[in-house]
Parts: sequence; structure tokens; C-alpha cells
Amino acid sequence: MSLLVVGSIALDSLETPFGKKEDVLGGSATYFSTTASFFGPVQLVAVIGEDFPESHLQFLRGRGIDLEGLTREAGRTFRWKGKYGWELNEAQTLDTQLNVFESFSPNLPAAYRETPYVFLGNIHPELQSRVLDQVKAPKLVAADTMNFWIQGSRPALLKTLQRVNLLFINDAEARQLSGEHNVVKAARAILAMGPSRVVIKRGEHGALLFDQDHIFACPAFPLSEVFDPTGAGDTFAGGFMGTLASSGSSGKVDQQLLRKAMVMGSVMASFTVEKFSLERLREVQRPEIHARFAEFKKLTHFDDLGPLGG
Amino acid sequence: MSLLVVGSIALDSLETPFGKKEDVLGGSATYFSTTASFFGPVQLVAVIGEDFPESHLQFLRGRGIDLEGLTREAGRTFRWKGKYGWELNEAQTLDTQLNVFESFSPNLPAAYRETPYVFLGNIHPELQSRVLDQVKAPKLVAADTMNFWIQGSRPALLKTLQRVNLLFINDAEARQLSGEHNVVKAARAILAMGPSRVVIKRGEHGALLFDQDHIFACPAFPLSEVFDPTGAGDTFAGGFMGTLASSGSSGKVDQQLLRKAMVMGSVMASFTVEKFSLERLREVQRPEIHARFAEFKKLTHFDDLGPLGG
Repeated sequence: MSLLVVGSIALDSLETPFGKKEDVLGGSATYFSTTASFFGPVQLVAVIGEDFPESHLQFLRGRGIDLEGLTREAGRTFRWKGKYGWELNEAQTLDTQLNVFESFSPNLPAAYRETPYVFLGNIHPELQSRVLDQVKAPKLVAADTMNFWIQGSRPALLKTLQRVNLLFINDAEARQLSGEHNVVKAARAILAMGPSRVVIKRGEHGALLFDQDHIFACPAFPLSEVFDPTGAGDTFAGGFMGTLASSGSSGKVDQQLLRKAMVMGSVMASFTVEKFSLERLREVQRPEIHARFAEFKKLTHFDDLGPLGG
Repeated sequence: MSLLVVGSIALDSLETPFGKKEDVLGGSATYFSTTASFFGPVQLVAVIGEDFPESHLQFLRGRGIDLEGLTREAGRTFRWKGKYGWELNEAQTLDTQLNVFESFSPNLPAAYRETPYVFLGNIHPELQSRVLDQVKAPKLVAADTMNFWIQGSRPALLKTLQRVNLLFINDAEARQLSGEHNVVKAARAILAMGPSRVVIKRGEHGALLFDQDHIFACPAFPLSEVFDPTGAGDTFAGGFMGTLASSGSSGKVDQQLLRKAMVMGSVMASFTVEKFSLERLREVQRPEIHARFAEFKKLTHFDDLGPLGG
């Protein structure tokens, strides 16, 4: 089943302890759609400027991503400049130039309006709502957000959350949104805001999936080299939603499928951070993806307790 | 099979966001031995002062802990005073009074010298070595250490590590000891120092077990209330070593047993932090322990990937 993503396409300039890159392909919708394209059809709604390289479009098209919802506007493409220290967990934003993204108003082609799986990337919550006004009867709506909207557009965000089934959020943002320091309490508070499921992302410490009745803890893949964490969260969401959409023909999004989706999100994110930008996602092959999924089993499996003592 | 622990017995004064306690039972050997006593026989080597309450000794005796190696010296018992903020991950030490612990020189009763499982609590690495001089042919020697020894007694610590099979260490200390920021690289560097296994503890983010060929990631149990993290690390070690010692009659310490030990360490630590001092460990019952072990299965289990895509 197909999957719709609305978000940013950017040209990123990155500095990490391992090197520097200028104007490389980035943006939430880019990471998400590239990742999800490994699992099934993806429809992309985003905006680019006149300067956006044709080669990047060819890459996205080459991944089979439906670009009917992609518009090119007069002006420059959204640019983000960030720097990571050794912690590699949080980027320091050096510069943001919204450019054409400033007046982005997502308009869904007719063919996109019946799409069952929807991912609202990290854009203004009012724009996220506007997307939902246009889709007819989505089976599952997931969203991402960030500190900027939690602080600056809280009422709009709370309104959007009422219409969202699953929220992806990092731990610091979950605390900020909920006002709860403890991660379990924060998750419960967010579940009371609308979403029936929340995924709390914890960078190198993995991610937690909460619903009313279950908690699932998924580790991050222990990597000895992390080059560039940019896009890890959107890649995670892409692997997660791609897994749901590609398995959802039975119509059942149950715990076991959600857990597989969590692991696949972690698998894909573990590839993304191994190189700059989308370099690793460009080259990774399905057998590697399946092999790393199996590695997650080995990483987390343990036997039942059995007899102990004495 | 029996298990020997050498470490501190303390009277702790604690301040957390949830309350204050003065002169409560604490110390690495106390948390370790109390926890390990759920699994099998434990021998304790430690020192207390004249002021150590008889009721605490009765408690330890009541848990079946062998106190032949416990000596009472003239002077006051070791005291530690610490404070936790909302993060609850790291204590701020407000005061340390070594008292009788300052001249602690562990002397093993004859009956302890053939004990197969040895845990060297967080004491001076030279004292740890002195304990190893006294044990005959231990099957497995595990140790804990801390930033204070890593910085101040590095040569002695490196010497001890040559004789240690398994090191418990937290992530910040692993970085400090190895000089590697990345946790996988840090673990590999520590494996090159002597231990064939290293457990890297990450507080609320769980723990990682490394050997040359495997990594096992164990989450922490997601608790909505964490009252007092004091002793969580030693409780983890107690659950871990207790599991090994009680299952080790076959003589085989393999991956699956080590993984069960990791989970049991996490189970026991999750109880300890639910109340102040050893309050929760005093009341917890075996059925609760087994039930929480089963909860860890539910928390981490996921199905094989199966068919995906399209």
C-alpha cells in the first residue's frame, strides 16, 4: 500500500568531527522517502527552489518515488547548516535559510488523497493539519515535530495531535511537550493528547514504543563509527512507516508489526549515520538490510529464565 | 556454587527530589550481597565500625549471607552523603568519610579461598589485587571500578584488570579508562586490557555486554517512578553474578547464561531504585523477580522479519 510524506527537501552544510560537506542533499522528506522506497511506493509532497540540482531529482525518481507532489518555486532551496561535536547526539544549528520553504503550502495531487499511510514530517503544525484536511480516510497518520513548534506553536500542535495516530518525538522534546521528566510519564501524557502510539527516540540509546498496554524497547545498533547523524530520525520514520505500509494489506497494524517496524527503523537509521548525507542509503542493498535486521535479533535475544538457584 | 564479594558497607545520607534519608544502610558489598542472596550462597568481606547497627547485621544474616569475612573495627562506619537532581543518573557527592574503610585490608577466611565466583567491588585496585592473591582457582573474577581509581591509580588498576575476567563499568568511566569516545571502541579497548568480557552500564538506558564475538543490548526496565538510584550498579552486579553462580554447576558460562545474567541484573536494579536504600530489596519476593524477568521478554521481543514489500 502506498505511503505519503510531506516535509522538507534541503541542501545541508554539515560539519562533524570527521569532516565537512557543503550543500549536500538533505531534508526530512528526502531521508524519509528514500528510506521508505526500499519497502514500497512513496508519494512525496515538498518544495524545491530553482537551484535544486537535477541530479538529486534523478536520484529520487530512480528510487521510484512519485514526485507529482513536488513543486519547484522561484527562489533558492531551503538550506540548513549544522555542526556536531563528539557527542554526535545533537546538532548545533549554525544557519537556517528557509527560502522557498517559507511559503510552502502543501497541496496534494488528486492521486495522493486516498493514500492510506501518511507521514507528516517536521513542518509547522498548521501545515500538517492542512495536509490532513486533504486526505480522505487515512488508515494511519504519523507525525514528527520539534522543540521549535512545541515552544512556539503549541496550540496548533495540540490541535494537530488530536488527528495523529502515532507521534515520533525525541526524548528531550517528549519532556518539553509533556512537562514530565520521566520518560514513561511523558509518553503517557502524550498518549492523552491524541496519538494512540508514541515512539520516543533516544539517539544512540535506541527508541521506545508506547501504547496504552505495551512498551517495546529497541536498541540502536552499536556502531564503532558514526559519521553523520543528520536524517537519522527521518530515516527511522521511513523504515518504520515503510514496514507498516508494505505489510498492511491485511489491514492489521498489531503489536508484532509495530515492533518489526521499530527494528526496521533502527536498521535503516544505523545505515544512514555511517556516511555523510544520503551516501550510505544510496548504496545499501536489500540483503544488507535483512542481514542487519537479523543482527538486531542476535543483539537482543535472550532465553527464558529456566531453573535457577542453589 | 558460592560467590564471594569484597567491597564497602556504608551508612548513606541521601537527598533526591523525592525526599531525604540519613544514615541508611548502603555500600557496594551490601547491595551486591543482598541481591546475590536471592540466588545462592554469598560470602562477604567488608569492614564496619563500632556504630554499625546490629539490626543491619541481623538483616544480612537473615538473608543467609556468610559474615565470617566481616570485621568490626574501632571507629565509625564508612559514610557517604550524596544528592541527586531530576536527572537521577549521576550522584553529586556531598561528603565522604572513609572512617574504618580507610585502613580496610581484606583478609579472606580460609573457607572463602576456594570460592569459584568472585566479585571485587569498587575499592582501591591494589586491594582488589590483594584479594585475588588469596583466592586459589576462581572460575570467574568480576570487578567494578570508578573514575577516582581510573584517574588516580591507573597503573594499579591496569594490573588488576589483567587478572579480571569481567569488568562492570559505566559509560563515562569506560570512555575515561579507554580514551575512546565511541562506546563500541571503548569496549574493545577494555577487552584488550585483560577482561574477556565487559559490561557497560548506561543507567536508564540499560547495559551492553561485549566480548570478542558478541554484543548484547539489555534495556533498563521503564519505570514511571525512580526514587533513589543509589546501589543500582552493585545490585545489577549482584543479580548478574548471582545468576552465573547459581547456574554454573555445569561449569559452562556461555553467551546464553551471560545474557540471562544481564537481564537478571537489570531486573534486580529495577527493584532497587523503586525505593530508598535497600527498602525494596528487603521486601521483594522471588515470584515478583520471575515475573519481571518475563516482563523483560515482553519489553524486547520481536518476531522475525518475514516477507515484506509490495
